[in-house]
Amino acid sequence: MGLKSKRIAILAPVAWRTPPRAYGAWETVASNITEGLVARGWKNVTLFATKESITKAKLAGWIEKGYEEDKTQIPKVSECLHISKVMERADEFDLIHNNFDYLPLTYLPFIKTPMLTTIHGFSDPDILRVYHDHKDSYYVSISDSDRDKDLPYLATVYNGIDLSNLTFRAKAGDKLIHYGRIHPDKGTDLAIEVAKKCGRDLIIAGIIQDQDYFDNSLKPHINDSSIQYIGPVNPVQRDALLKEAYTVIHLNTIPERFGLVMAEAMAAGVPVIAMDLGSCREVIVDKSTGFLVNNVEEAVEAVGKIDSIDRKKCRRHVEENFTIGRMVSGYEKVYEEIFRREAQKGK
Amino acid sequence: MGLKSKRIAILAPVAWRTPPRAYGAWETVASNITEGLVARGWKNVTLFATKESITKAKLAGWIEKGYEEDKTQIPKVSECLHISKVMERADEFDLIHNNFDYLPLTYLPFIKTPMLTTIHGFSDPDILRVYHDHKDSYYVSISDSDRDKDLPYLATVYNGIDLSNLTFRAKAGDKLIHYGRIHPDKGTDLAIEVAKKCGRDLIIAGIIQDQDYFDNSLKPHINDSSIQYIGPVNPVQRDALLKEAYTVIHLNTIPERFGLVMAEAMAAGVPVIAMDLGSCREVIVDKSTGFLVNNVEEAVEAVGKIDSIDRKKCRRHVEENFTIGRMVSGYEKVYEEIFRREAQKGK
Repeated sequence: MGLKSKRIAILAPVAWRTPPRAYGAWETVASNITEGLVARGWKNVTLFATKESITKAKLAGWIEKGYEEDKTQIPKVSECLHISKVMERADEFDLIHNNFDYLPLTYLPFIKTPMLTTIHGFSDPDILRVYHDHKDSYYVSISDSDRDKDLPYLATVYNGIDLSNLTFRAKAGDKLIHYGRIHPDKGTDLAIEVAKKCGRDLIIAGIIQDQDYFDNSLKPHINDSSIQYIGPVNPVQRDALLKEAYTVIHLNTIPERFGLVMAEAMAAGVPVIAMDLGSCREVIVDKSTGFLVNNVEEAVEAVGKIDSIDRKKCRRHVEENFTIGRMVSGYEKVYEEIFRREAQKGK
Repeated sequence: MGLKSKRIAILAPVAWRTPPRAYGAWETVASNITEGLVARGWKNVTLFATKESITKAKLAGWIEKGYEEDKTQIPKVSECLHISKVMERADEFDLIHNNFDYLPLTYLPFIKTPMLTTIHGFSDPDILRVYHDHKDSYYVSISDSDRDKDLPYLATVYNGIDLSNLTFRAKAGDKLIHYGRIHPDKGTDLAIEVAKKCGRDLIIAGIIQDQDYFDNSLKPHINDSSIQYIGPVNPVQRDALLKEAYTVIHLNTIPERFGLVMAEAMAAGVPVIAMDLGSCREVIVDKSTGFLVNNVEEAVEAVGKIDSIDRKKCRRHVEENFTIGRMVSGYEKVYEEIFRREAQKGK
């Protein structure tokens, strides 16, 4: 049986629809992997996601709507039902590709199908207890920097993004842009500081994940002119937003795990000014597709040097490293290695 | 093989030690079931609980300390590890008696051992999605009132309490007592209202589960004299507290599921004034071991009639209905029925 006939179950989270309407980073990647496999000729791909999800693969689901979109749901209830339903069907698949976090691992002792887990982030060091309890499973990291030293990773596979809604624009806009989820981790307040110090307008977009942070640290600075907040953006709105961009300000305050926003910005030809924490130096080429900085002052300086960046290079960097095709070809190699090891075990 | 040689796994929660040091209602009941089975001659009982738990049965555990006692833990991580470890050992048991809530049910498709779930409460209607997905499992309710109409219950088994730390006292104290977890559901603010209207002193005890409620609705009334709050009480402190009791005020604002506090109070000879919601009318005999009321005014009236209650009757009512022996004998019947049905299936 050829590799591309293997039966693959892609396990997506059920916080949002897959692909999400606006925000939903893990669901976005799960969708990109699924559609990417189909596009590359994989014949037996099943996406396990909310029932209203959209895919060219087979769709299987138990949860009607994402629990972030239907607040009557208790997340844990939806999660454990969703996962157990996938596990009940484990025998129908040659591989389960888990994009869900740690809970599916606790069902591993009961299934025979191998599972690959892409670790999209360690939300808290305590979740390592589950990973360390399953060191004999298969893992992929989404950047070299976001690795736990005690886990046996098969590879780093960078997230791939869908370029179809990211128009390359040779001509720069004149605004500073900051988007993603609004949370202290993402340094939205620092972006405001940079904008004020540069005297440039700033547009902020994204869902508010920390309302106190928004109310106390951001809202007092937001007006309808120099500092705007426009709410979450879907892919079409994001494309329009990036058209306005002189540069994207991404001053994350904790180590970035991957940073989809940076790849999206560069795909549109927009250089990124990012904090040199975590994966940022893996996604951005310093002084070539943006600038790595260590504080607000350096970010302000970097804004002054943005014209030195070749916007075509930004686009090319994404095309060569962060496309869905590139990601899926990375996963194909990992799947192949898993099948090789499993066949070895069977002997 | 005799019934009492069957291998029973008692699955306790891991929020607190089993038995808990102070608060921990489900852990208390799980402990009472375990110790009660051992006391009645069951030979192969294993308690799955935190590793520091105490039992005369075999102890099995994976989680060092309860996640409520060690806040570095993410509850969901400890829960899913604890449960999956029990399930991995399912084949070693003839019955798993789940006192944990709904999450263990999602592992049912992967084990052959029958599971009995005592439903200690529906924390939210949404958790019914999991129960309804496993209608072919075995269920016990802790009161006739706390039942979901769509679930097939084998029986109601009332919680049994350990009488060893509940001294019967023929002589009444002169204080109103309110204890349990401090939460609007338990009507602590109503107890304060009753105390003020009666002109009697009130002592409040228990862990604060809703800090806003405590700070805003209770604290302004608390002084060091007429309205006292003394924090959580362990069984010995609780016994001393009940010595002071003229009556226990239990004006729950949502249907009570069982109401350990009411049984404990009556065991000490203390009549209870309870809101007529949920299981209260199953635990209290109105006008004989306390009073069922519908509001603060009726509760105030009831305080005036407390002398008409025979405190010996309160104690006797508990001895006849809510002892550990009584509860365990209830579970023995249920276990027997499960083994009968399982043997039937095997044929």
